[in-house]
Amino acid sequence: MEKAEFTVDYFSGEVESALSRISYPATAPGLYAPISYTLDGGGKRLRPVLLLAVFAAVSGRAVEEAMPQALAVEMFHNFTLLHDDVMDDADIRRGRPAVHRRWNASVAILSGDAMLTLSSQLLAQCPRHILPEALALFNTTAMEVYQGQQLDMEFQDMHSVSEADYLEMIRLKTSVLLACACALGAMAADSDNAVRKAFYEYGLNLGLAFQMRDDWLDTYGDPAVFGKQIGGDILNRKKTWLYTKACEDVDAAKALDAAYAGYKADGDEEKLIAAVREIYDSLELGERLVSQAANYAADARRNIACIEMDERAREFFNSLADKAATRDH
Amino acid sequence: MEKAEFTVDYFSGEVESALSRISYPATAPGLYAPISYTLDGGGKRLRPVLLLAVFAAVSGRAVEEAMPQALAVEMFHNFTLLHDDVMDDADIRRGRPAVHRRWNASVAILSGDAMLTLSSQLLAQCPRHILPEALALFNTTAMEVYQGQQLDMEFQDMHSVSEADYLEMIRLKTSVLLACACALGAMAADSDNAVRKAFYEYGLNLGLAFQMRDDWLDTYGDPAVFGKQIGGDILNRKKTWLYTKACEDVDAAKALDAAYAGYKADGDEEKLIAAVREIYDSLELGERLVSQAANYAADARRNIACIEMDERAREFFNSLADKAATRDH
Repeated sequence: MEKAEFTVDYFSGEVESALSRISYPATAPGLYAPISYTLDGGGKRLRPVLLLAVFAAVSGRAVEEAMPQALAVEMFHNFTLLHDDVMDDADIRRGRPAVHRRWNASVAILSGDAMLTLSSQLLAQCPRHILPEALALFNTTAMEVYQGQQLDMEFQDMHSVSEADYLEMIRLKTSVLLACACALGAMAADSDNAVRKAFYEYGLNLGLAFQMRDDWLDTYGDPAVFGKQIGGDILNRKKTWLYTKACEDVDAAKALDAAYAGYKADGDEEKLIAAVREIYDSLELGERLVSQAANYAADARRNIACIEMDERAREFFNSLADKAATRDH
Repeated sequence: MEKAEFTVDYFSGEVESALSRISYPATAPGLYAPISYTLDGGGKRLRPVLLLAVFAAVSGRAVEEAMPQALAVEMFHNFTLLHDDVMDDADIRRGRPAVHRRWNASVAILSGDAMLTLSSQLLAQCPRHILPEALALFNTTAMEVYQGQQLDMEFQDMHSVSEADYLEMIRLKTSVLLACACALGAMAADSDNAVRKAFYEYGLNLGLAFQMRDDWLDTYGDPAVFGKQIGGDILNRKKTWLYTKACEDVDAAKALDAAYAGYKADGDEEKLIAAVREIYDSLELGERLVSQAANYAADARRNIACIEMDERAREFFNSLADKAATRDH
């Protein structure tokens, strides 16, 4: 394999090609079909891209060497999507029926379990001398991701949550896995602790920017570009950053309650979405979110500012952080 | 900790006491409460008992040293029970509501996921030099267990299955984890490959004896001693060894179809159970099962006959195999 070009397309192309080479035992096709269905579903491959890019930037070596760990992180991420979709009773994932709809809940549970074990098997292919540390980080991260999902589910039954609680939830549910991917890339490159820590923090901040932008897109995105219906979070009264901040304002909180009471009475989705957006707009929450996401992206850039690397690599990481905060889909 | 006495009570007492010392983070009580509920539910602790006994027999050292691996295997086993109960829509586990009934399916899925990762964390506490091998065996075993559960679910929709398919299913779903526990105990004792393999085979055969006896107890057990209702397998037309063998006989297979057709019409559970038992009895399947289970127990004894160990230890393993094949509960 040639040396890394520092583009998302290069790294994600390598990931796609490695994913397509995974072969599953023929013994239990019913167990593996939902796994390849899930992995074939596309997605940004952001986590393995980050892992490979950090590895390439720090080591200067071809990415093949760190591919098992990259696939482990992607496998783990897809396992969480599969189980989350059962828990959230979601119909659609990446434009296709979720596994528990295409098959059933039992299939989704069991295939998800298998993906979690497969991710551990992939991770275990890393060099022997980094296995204890890599496994410890991977498992700690997994526990944090479950805690994030647990918080997210608990938030559904709460009337409001604080901004701090919201940020802690997205840190656990989304950011730590991006951070883990970055740190595993640095570990595979045999970097010292300072470099690992810098990339871990970079991943955390990139994740916060990414998830806040996700909230923004669900309310303010262009459905034609975003590829999803707009307003799902509003209809589900999801405790997003926008909702959280609106609740800090006494009048806005009252207006939200009134809007949802009206929706309960008339079931008019369009009216509810328009009313809630108006409340958010009155507090300029869309703009404030964009600015806070940009701050996280700037923090991410700062996290790696003192790390020595090729300028193409630095530019790659910097623009990835900016894109996380400003992307349209 | 003192040296091992070779009794099930000694080893299971050590396991119970270690389980009670596990402390969970206070950050996400909703995630951990179902885990301690599950682990507090008792059970035979057969897998960790086996692991510790093999470790003690081979190394002569105090069991504390192998406790993390023992807890890993028990944690994994309880994770499978938790998810299986969701998939099988089972109400009761060890005399108490299953987790997905006491809480809900989402809680059961997420807490089960956490238990799988916790089991990996426990396993990772083993000595660094055996980690790659221990993890590889643990993960391979986990994949086999999922395949066993997958087969078990597929069997539900099939009219009949061959004895060979049935045996392969229980090997995967039950036996390989007992075998893995034994091999991990030998690994922790730094034994050579021959010893590991002998104990692995011992665990496989013990598992087959154990599971066949389980099928027998569900049809012929004394409910007062067994602690469960008798006949659940018959009512669910479960593809047990008894059912499988009955289907090999053309007349018995026809009689089974007639009995289930009658049950579909009248819903009389007692009548169905009596009719199916009569079919089994006409072929002496109860006795044949008991004799085949005894053969597996004898195979298990033979597997370790050439392994050097204290006579108390050998007596322990031999009687454990016999008990698996003849137990009343």
